[in-house]
Amino acid sequence: MDDRKLDRIEIKPIGFVRRTSAKDDEKDRSLVSEIVLTSDLAKALDGIHEWSHIYVIYWLDKVMHNDEPVLHFPGAKPESAPVGILSTRAPIRPNPIGLTLVELIRREKNVIHVRGLDAYDGTPVLDIKPYPDWEHGRFIVVTDFRVPEWLSSRIAKCE
Amino acid sequence: MDDRKLDRIEIKPIGFVRRTSAKDDEKDRSLVSEIVLTSDLAKALDGIHEWSHIYVIYWLDKVMHNDEPVLHFPGAKPESAPVGILSTRAPIRPNPIGLTLVELIRREKNVIHVRGLDAYDGTPVLDIKPYPDWEHGRFIVVTDFRVPEWLSSRIAKCE
Repeated sequence: MDDRKLDRIEIKPIGFVRRTSAKDDEKDRSLVSEIVLTSDLAKALDGIHEWSHIYVIYWLDKVMHNDEPVLHFPGAKPESAPVGILSTRAPIRPNPIGLTLVELIRREKNVIHVRGLDAYDGTPVLDIKPYPDWEHGRFIVVTDFRVPEWLSSRIAKCE
Repeated sequence: MDDRKLDRIEIKPIGFVRRTSAKDDEKDRSLVSEIVLTSDLAKALDGIHEWSHIYVIYWLDKVMHNDEPVLHFPGAKPESAPVGILSTRAPIRPNPIGLTLVELIRREKNVIHVRGLDAYDGTPVLDIKPYPDWEHGRFIVVTDFRVPEWLSSRIAKCE
């Protein structure tokens, strides 16, 4: 292992999440929340309204944990077989980074309003990126994918 | 602006990118590259092979810049109208974070082989996440999206 490549990286957030709903629930993705960027980055949002969807990359600073487990029990059920923490989207992970694809509602100066962000009020935002990615004249939108049985069975139960 | 929320965050990479192709080109997304995690995270990958696609979140440490521009000229054409840097996927951005959706080929202990990662050899990896995200019994896969005219016209030219 080349430790030179694994130095610590220092990141300064570009802004934070502001939740304004009276009856707020960060798990309810139908709600609109705001991303408030530092005022010097207002112009960096010029043209963002032309995208309907963006990725939000944020820092899960509210996640409390005493250790960094490598295994996770999907659905928090102890009877389920554990899987590696990186094989899940569990928030307790080696680097508590959040990634959510959201609908962009509108932008006002250094603030954007988005629907579908499952982050707490005050969460530091590290980056936002337009969706989708592209290469060689095609958009990268994957609709043909495979997921683990522990997830597909949960999804099927909800249908 | 509440500066308390904007403290610097320290992140330790979980591993790095290893590119092995003799004729390597990080722009060629058909090539397979490796993500080598620190050995203590090997078990955190258990079950990852059940996903066909994952997101890779990484740190663009090879991006050199003297300042942090807020505007970007799409396609590096000075005649194009500039847009805000956060309205593009340009690597020179306030936090040089990379995000790529890749195909998972196979896993061997603490190493995963992926196709489609546009990152240089040695790039620090911050997190990996299964694709797609889900909520309330449905996968979040967006196929109905809107992009800016500067991009749609470029995509159309390639068809």
